[in-house]
Amino acid sequence: MEAESKAEAIAEAESKADDQVEPSDQWAHKAWTMLTTVRRQSPLIQCITNFVSMDLMANTLLSAGASPAMLHTLEEIPDFTPQVHALCLNVGTLSADWLPAMKAAADFASKSAKPWVLDPVAAGASGFRLNACLDLLQLKPTVIRGNGSEIMALSKASVQPTKGVDSSHESTDAMEAAKSLARSTGAVVAVSGAVDIVTDGERVVGAHNGVAMMQKITATGCSVTALIAAFVAVDPTNALEATALALSIFGVAGEMGMSLAKGPASLRMHLIDSLYGLDEATLISRVKITNFCD
Amino acid sequence: MEAESKAEAIAEAESKADDQVEPSDQWAHKAWTMLTTVRRQSPLIQCITNFVSMDLMANTLLSAGASPAMLHTLEEIPDFTPQVHALCLNVGTLSADWLPAMKAAADFASKSAKPWVLDPVAAGASGFRLNACLDLLQLKPTVIRGNGSEIMALSKASVQPTKGVDSSHESTDAMEAAKSLARSTGAVVAVSGAVDIVTDGERVVGAHNGVAMMQKITATGCSVTALIAAFVAVDPTNALEATALALSIFGVAGEMGMSLAKGPASLRMHLIDSLYGLDEATLISRVKITNFCD
Amino acid sequence: MEAESKAEAIAEAESKADDQVEPSDQWAHKAWTMLTTVRRQSPLIQCITNFVSMDLMANTLLSAGASPAMLHTLEEIPDFTPQVHALCLNVGTLSADWLPAMKAAADFASKSAKPWVLDPVAAGASGFRLNACLDLLQLKPTVIRGNGSEIMALSKASVQPTKGVDSSHESTDAMEAAKSLARSTGAVVAVSGAVDIVTDGERVVGAHNGVAMMQKITATGCSVTALIAAFVAVDPTNALEATALALSIFGVAGEMGMSLAKGPASLRMHLIDSLYGLDEATLISRVKITNFCD
Repeated sequence: MEAESKAEAIAEAESKADDQVEPSDQWAHKAWTMLTTVRRQSPLIQCITNFVSMDLMANTLLSAGASPAMLHTLEEIPDFTPQVHALCLNVGTLSADWLPAMKAAADFASKSAKPWVLDPVAAGASGFRLNACLDLLQLKPTVIRGNGSEIMALSKASVQPTKGVDSSHESTDAMEAAKSLARSTGAVVAVSGAVDIVTDGERVVGAHNGVAMMQKITATGCSVTALIAAFVAVDPTNALEATALALSIFGVAGEMGMSLAKGPASLRMHLIDSLYGLDEATLISRVKITNFCD
Repeated sequence: MEAESKAEAIAEAESKADDQVEPSDQWAHKAWTMLTTVRRQSPLIQCITNFVSMDLMANTLLSAGASPAMLHTLEEIPDFTPQVHALCLNVGTLSADWLPAMKAAADFASKSAKPWVLDPVAAGASGFRLNACLDLLQLKPTVIRGNGSEIMALSKASVQPTKGVDSSHESTDAMEAAKSLARSTGAVVAVSGAVDIVTDGERVVGAHNGVAMMQKITATGCSVTALIAAFVAVDPTNALEATALALSIFGVAGEMGMSLAKGPASLRMHLIDSLYGLDEATLISRVKITNFCD
Repeated sequence: MEAESKAEAIAEAESKADDQVEPSDQWAHKAWTMLTTVRRQSPLIQCITNFVSMDLMANTLLSAGASPAMLHTLEEIPDFTPQVHALCLNVGTLSADWLPAMKAAADFASKSAKPWVLDPVAAGASGFRLNACLDLLQLKPTVIRGNGSEIMALSKASVQPTKGVDSSHESTDAMEAAKSLARSTGAVVAVSGAVDIVTDGERVVGAHNGVAMMQKITATGCSVTALIAAFVAVDPTNALEATALALSIFGVAGEMGMSLAKGPASLRMHLIDSLYGLDEATLISRVKITNFCD
């Protein structure tokens, strides 16, 4: 599910925006600072995620220097969640018996000002799933990362009711949907695509790294959401920047992996190896993040 | 569980059969047509499968060009299953709370003439599991794929009662068990082994590709069952051929992977890379499918 | 969770112990005998484990020549557990609905003198988890393998009550905690670290193989616990030796993998390939196990 392409909506959005390029080495130096901070602090990230992504997500966090904890049992939330530095929730294989633990952990995080990140996988696939996501939105995620159709489904469902029944407007543009969702929830919203878009409802940033074949590996989207959680954990007051940097760094690791890969399975391996070994010169030469004006 | 060898029963069955070789390039050209169709149509395959296989199964589908959806929650079946092109059910880590969703999804598929494939992993391991498989057989799978012992366990349990209590016959031959199961269920039945056998109860076809080391990788059997679902999704009226072609193509990817592998873990990687990159010339030169007479 | 380093406590413990090196080729020859026995007998190992580790654990067992069965459903324990040669329990993603099956399987194993191994992942992370581990300890595991903090948490919780409320002593030393836990439970206790320590409460053995980067791969600890189960399955009367040999052989596979690896993901692949292909000369030249005196 995570590998769907959302390039279309994004490409369209991007073509509308004037690219106002921030000196790239400024973002690049921030990227290196953030990565070394994650490596040094090794933040503990609790992941309540889908069964498909657990392995790659844990290995992504480990290779970035963070400490994963895949712990989803309701009984353990009160003891364990206070110890973590950030929380990552992912509804990919959600079932009714997992939802209370997600809500309890998100509620705790929200009340204790601990950052938490939501990955609304396939939010529009069923009413059950969409309602679960809307419930979680009430618990004030710090960041929401999805693909274009997920963000549009979520934005439409969460924003429309406030416009009243006579609203006939529907966001069909991923960037507008992201901004609208960000404004209605207070979260930073990231939309993955050929260019990843990150917005807080006002400012919009584009992260241009990555390769198309990453969409042919299951759980890469889930894993970058966990990486965002690790980055926000070490810089919670700059969630928009931390999110853009995580997306860009994961993309750089994908680009480096692609130079060695012969297909999606070897790309998966080289991506993780590259994330683990990423050095300053490589990162600084490759990070490409731009500001969009609106 | 998926890696057990069932070569013995199959080898025996094969030695009994006269090999009536269909011009191999006819099968080979069908193989290429099917693979390109899957790549072009990218059928959406819902998998309700075991925890061990989710990652490799999703990556197998992605590398073949299909779209995996690992979605198993009862509440979501009514909204989601109507959207998929085929369904793959696998009882590898079955528990009582997952069975209703499997039944609901299979029932929907059956009633809407959507193809669905059953992998009766370790069918004989417990009464609970065998009964679950027998319940699922009532919902008319399009294809059943298992190893020799699984198919024999299922055939014995599902066929015998119809013969009455005085039946003393038990299938001890995988091919006979497969034919008997196919006739009693109306499904195409595939038995994995040194040679994979596919039958609709009358016609019997052998797929000769693959390498022995694939049995040392967990979830290869589960994954080829999902690939069968993707192939049957794009050619539902020719389930026997689609099944044989999926088995053969997965085997070809294994053969190509084996030429690069140094052990089971690198074989797993190269197999997926090879499936992704498979080109016409390679596929046509390698596919080996034969007709058995009876 | 499995990748936490416990090197500190172990290094301290090791520095206190006089190394009394047993002729290394004696252990090395035992290692080769054990590995070939596992390869020949292919013991069936039932794993009730966490979602993160299922894939790597199954592939570890397969590459070592054993037969994995990832089967955790309560209804199946009476039919299936009698057929297995050893049982591996791991509480990594424990939830309340899985615990009854773990207890039923461990109870059966204990009563039928079948070896079983406990991996108390993150035992101290919550009261729920610690209590579950303490309940499982009552069912007499043959071996307990954890990291230093897990073994210390378990030892403190299980040993202290017997000392009365006025006990002010707490083990802060992993080796002392392991010996104490071994004596109070009757199990062989293994503590993973820079040097792995194995004790039955009296004798203490150190397994010196492995590389630090194995801690950057999720589920390596879980997987070596399953390998211990396979080794104890074929030599149940020498659980301490079987445990040390499994740890050392897995470490040797890691060392060999490291010579080819470029990061944690390629190490994971090469480790499994190396375990599969391990030959006598390599194993004998690399195994390093020592006796500690006390």
